[in-house]
Amino acid sequence: MSTTPPGRLRKAPENFIDRDGLAQVFAQARSGRRDFIRGAFAAAAAGLAVPTAMAQAAAPADGDPNILELPEHSKGLGLPVATNGYGKPSKYEGNVQRRQSPGLTQTTQASVSFAPLQSLFGIVTPSGLHFERHHQGWWDIDPSKHRFMVNGMVKAAKVFTMDELMRLPSVSRFHFIECGANTGAEWGNVAVPTCQYTHGMLSCSEFTGVPLITLLEMAGADLKNGKFVLAEGGDGSSMTRTIPMELVRSGEVLVAYGQNGEMLRPENGYPLRLVVPGVQGVSWVKYLRRVELGDQPYGTKDETVHYVDLMPDGQHRQYTSIQECKSVVTTPSGGQMLLDKGFYNVSGLAWSGRGKVKRVDVSVDGGRNWRTARLETPVLSKCLTRFSIDWVWDGKPAIIQSRAMDETGYVQPALRQLRAVRGTRSIYHNNAIQSWLVEANGEVKNVQVG
Amino acid sequence: MSTTPPGRLRKAPENFIDRDGLAQVFAQARSGRRDFIRGAFAAAAAGLAVPTAMAQAAAPADGDPNILELPEHSKGLGLPVATNGYGKPSKYEGNVQRRQSPGLTQTTQASVSFAPLQSLFGIVTPSGLHFERHHQGWWDIDPSKHRFMVNGMVKAAKVFTMDELMRLPSVSRFHFIECGANTGAEWGNVAVPTCQYTHGMLSCSEFTGVPLITLLEMAGADLKNGKFVLAEGGDGSSMTRTIPMELVRSGEVLVAYGQNGEMLRPENGYPLRLVVPGVQGVSWVKYLRRVELGDQPYGTKDETVHYVDLMPDGQHRQYTSIQECKSVVTTPSGGQMLLDKGFYNVSGLAWSGRGKVKRVDVSVDGGRNWRTARLETPVLSKCLTRFSIDWVWDGKPAIIQSRAMDETGYVQPALRQLRAVRGTRSIYHNNAIQSWLVEANGEVKNVQVG
Repeated sequence: MSTTPPGRLRKAPENFIDRDGLAQVFAQARSGRRDFIRGAFAAAAAGLAVPTAMAQAAAPADGDPNILELPEHSKGLGLPVATNGYGKPSKYEGNVQRRQSPGLTQTTQASVSFAPLQSLFGIVTPSGLHFERHHQGWWDIDPSKHRFMVNGMVKAAKVFTMDELMRLPSVSRFHFIECGANTGAEWGNVAVPTCQYTHGMLSCSEFTGVPLITLLEMAGADLKNGKFVLAEGGDGSSMTRTIPMELVRSGEVLVAYGQNGEMLRPENGYPLRLVVPGVQGVSWVKYLRRVELGDQPYGTKDETVHYVDLMPDGQHRQYTSIQECKSVVTTPSGGQMLLDKGFYNVSGLAWSGRGKVKRVDVSVDGGRNWRTARLETPVLSKCLTRFSIDWVWDGKPAIIQSRAMDETGYVQPALRQLRAVRGTRSIYHNNAIQSWLVEANGEVKNVQVG
Repeated sequence: MSTTPPGRLRKAPENFIDRDGLAQVFAQARSGRRDFIRGAFAAAAAGLAVPTAMAQAAAPADGDPNILELPEHSKGLGLPVATNGYGKPSKYEGNVQRRQSPGLTQTTQASVSFAPLQSLFGIVTPSGLHFERHHQGWWDIDPSKHRFMVNGMVKAAKVFTMDELMRLPSVSRFHFIECGANTGAEWGNVAVPTCQYTHGMLSCSEFTGVPLITLLEMAGADLKNGKFVLAEGGDGSSMTRTIPMELVRSGEVLVAYGQNGEMLRPENGYPLRLVVPGVQGVSWVKYLRRVELGDQPYGTKDETVHYVDLMPDGQHRQYTSIQECKSVVTTPSGGQMLLDKGFYNVSGLAWSGRGKVKRVDVSVDGGRNWRTARLETPVLSKCLTRFSIDWVWDGKPAIIQSRAMDETGYVQPALRQLRAVRGTRSIYHNNAIQSWLVEANGEVKNVQVG
């Protein structure tokens, strides 16, 4: 299974890795692996997460003298209930954070922070680590003053208070949200070192809200002639997006107030956002204040100038909103380090804007051989799916890739296949297979193969 | 569908409701419902949550002048990305908190805080609101120093570091956890006013960890003769519980480090806890440090003196660990108030320690008539299931109940049925049907019917 990196391998630049911090962590890890986890968390401060590196799982660890020292927490009285207020993660997890990519945008109010996918388990993204994309900064809006209007091709325009919306029949569903520009920096060359930055504009939550179709019906919408809705946000960016009525009619599009059991977070549109399963995040309009029904696409600024695909012939392709089938290995991934040969649980995420993930294959030799990974249940439509596969690393260079297939039969393309059609100068909708190079010294790097 | 409360109705005492605060909120709500949500959140400070109370959903709200005032957030520049650090809820949600029941225990290190079920949506409990039950306080344990040992009927005792555990094949699964004493105060008479206190020792998360059977196999366990494991916690309470090997063999029992996508929270056992799906929370040993394989139940302090069912004949029943099928309506529920007649989305939670919830019926007339509720998907085994049903309130007194059935065919019992077998002096395993009385003035109260 070992492999020598092909000649045309391109590696990620290292201009914003904290090399000194990393060297220190790796040195600590090598000198005494009993303290390695602490070091690993420190390394994460540089936007990296170093995976656990251990003796082979089969090696006995009996007789560890540490087990005989009775720690303080086994002897004393701990902290009382309800003293953590609204609960927070352990102090040892302080470096598991969303992070802004240095220099990505000119202002931090119109920027991105990425979710630390390399440190996450399962499919739920903790709301405190959900990626952010703001066009004019975020707000904490008073819900008692917020209004939501339905107008356009309706019998009578209708304005809802939050009270009124929350009294209506609601649904709760697990869905991923991915920015259309996720992995966008990788079109041309390898741009960023870690999966937090390559794929971290991706999160997954249980959303609760009222199907938009219910609200249109309440306003007496002309459902026969209405073909599109315009969704409009209430913040200064006045985000506006066209949504086809097919999606709305299916009942999937939600006017949502709930996320992972509680109210939406301010950074994610509190108190109200649109949920458009399978569609790129920009259409999930935050601080939602209005939906208008019409019979033509609206051609707004946010869908003519932005969020269009630059094609090789120089034309822009518009309204390519669906997030096609995609996957990424999160452990091991760029910026991490394997300290020993032996067993590893290779794990990652797969998703499709067309429905359920059907299968994920994993290669550890740059795509020559593939094995089918285990999928965690439940496998849900337009939702993240966690996959895992066993791997015994022989200590030689290896290129790890994952390739997802969805229930429509669509297979995630290789980067060269995608480039053949789309060129190298696009920003949006890069769903190519991701490659991670494990070097002989254990360092894992973002590379583009062939 | 209206009903007059039966003669034998028992109402909850009001000794720890903040009546003044509540009266103020209700007065505010009546005088101008546009500000009602803010008031409702204030009321929640008293451990209550007042549901939204609105004009009938069909009533038009057009022409609301507020919509014409452009709010500050529609004009200005908001806050930059990543300025909320590890994300927090909106400042307007500050009263959605877990709370300790006043006077429940003598010390707050051996006590409970309850999850605010009345304010939650869907099935995921945000980790920051997960209920707490500590026997000797909680700790934030350094994961680099934590060890987990497997011993007993094994070839060689084996000690794992967190690194070693996290490198092994893991699974992620959604499960509820319920304290065996949940709803325990209600055995005799109505004891507490809200569902936060009647049912709030209940939460649901996506847990990630290594199946315990894998770790036993790695230690060369005698799986033929081993019948029980002892699970031991590392905190000062030295919590110890016997788990039957049938549950372990099924692969369901996990040595878990992940919860809702990130590491366990300190209050919930960081860095390691046992997950025993379907079984009462006390067996989900926190700060897990050891599992021992044996061929007899261990009869520990935590399963002989505590967590035993006091039967009518004065004997204690032991090892009744499975949480039987149960449900509760969370909206509307005790302490809330309906301000108007008209449409309401009645919603709640159902669960079973035996498998999946098959059906939930809802009554609004104290059990005379029942209608089958909608279940949100996915319906998962040993996991919360969200149900909802439409209800038009006619303004007359009503008694709301829910009755769950699981896939084994078991039906949640009425309180009188449960008492006929178990008496009224038990603490544990009260899974009776819960009744909420909606009074003519809209106030919702915890009652016991007949």
